Amino acid sequence: MSKLRFKISMSLDGFVAGPSQSIKNPLGIGGGRLHEWAFKLAVFGALLGLEGGEVNESTPVVEESLANIGATVMGRNMFGGHPGPWDAQNPWKGWWGVNPPFHHPVFVLTHHAREPLQLDGGTTFTFVTDGIHAALEQARQATGGKDVTLAGGANAAQQYLAAGLVDEMEINLVPTLLGSGERLFEGVGDNLHGLDLVRTVAAAKVTHLKYAKR
Amino acid sequence: MSKLRFKISMSLDGFVAGPSQSIKNPLGIGGGRLHEWAFKLAVFGALLGLEGGEVNESTPVVEESLANIGATVMGRNMFGGHPGPWDAQNPWKGWWGVNPPFHHPVFVLTHHAREPLQLDGGTTFTFVTDGIHAALEQARQATGGKDVTLAGGANAAQQYLAAGLVDEMEINLVPTLLGSGERLFEGVGDNLHGLDLVRTVAAAKVTHLKYAKR
Repeated sequence: MSKLRFKISMSLDGFVAGPSQSIKNPLGIGGGRLHEWAFKLAVFGALLGLEGGEVNESTPVVEESLANIGATVMGRNMFGGHPGPWDAQNPWKGWWGVNPPFHHPVFVLTHHAREPLQLDGGTTFTFVTDGIHAALEQARQATGGKDVTLAGGANAAQQYLAAGLVDEMEINLVPTLLGSGERLFEGVGDNLHGLDLVRTVAAAKVTHLKYAKR
Repeated sequence: MSKLRFKISMSLDGFVAGPSQSIKNPLGIGGGRLHEWAFKLAVFGALLGLEGGEVNESTPVVEESLANIGATVMGRNMFGGHPGPWDAQNPWKGWWGVNPPFHHPVFVLTHHAREPLQLDGGTTFTFVTDGIHAALEQARQATGGKDVTLAGGANAAQQYLAAGLVDEMEINLVPTLLGSGERLFEGVGDNLHGLDLVRTVAAAKVTHLKYAKR
């Protein structure tokens, strides 16, 4: 069975993005601090075609998160750009340039229909307007039996978590405070739907907490 | 120098107490789940004069948190009972019965003056009405050079954290969601005042994250 595997970096005070998110500052004020642990890793740089970088305790965690993944689901805000209908003249093509780091089909939750967008390196963005279950179903069909990554952001994650659809969850807990912004678990309620803590990896600037249904 | 050492159990979604706290349910709905990891430990039971209990990965963490402590500071809500002035006829004496588990001087932040309350086993509650700095100073003077524990609850912790007065912080992160209640870092802002993650201990049902000023 193809699993839905969610991974995200969260501050100690529960935020996955800082305040005042914008096109120039998509992670919000301070939000970049959540990802410093990842950006410095060789395994992460390789996704962007970069050489060099660190190998440390986080490396096998990232490798595991990338293994056996055939598609990604994400929310409209993570795909980014602007709210509301797409610009017909110059439609937003994501934050990631012409060669995004996914290299597989990506399904974007949106209220605004749009033709699929094929970019380099095997990444195709498909825009799904009929909700989280439909997006997950389409992603599963695209994987050829592999798993699906839920990439975020907060709103999309909240919908999948509240519906109990997440099979595995990797919280990369970063020892910093953002103070405000987007809270991961806002409105999710008090039910983890069977997700138990199954593994903890301690690195210097991040703690990797893996939850899974047993 | 006598340190201020803060320890508290927090849910994955950042709450240190559940909703609807009351005399009958001081931890709020679901709040008891935050402390199950501790209640089952032999080292914790011993504080209450109980025999038996587990020894596991959390044991040395709790032993460390108890070592070299000479006094405790806590907020009025943690001391508990009711808001507002003390009942002159039948004043609240804390949640812990005649032999509280502290066994040293405890300083309670309150807006309502009251004579000290001496109970069995070496625990004396002193009520401090002139703020967090005064309470910390009194606690330090009572320790004979040992450290001071900041026990909580959320409001008292927020005041000490925001003022940068905490020297060490142990977050016992519990893999559960409470959904609502008292958030530990509400209003603290985005500044940890030099508290860095210095040690992580993984147990089955709790992750111990130690922060300290270097």
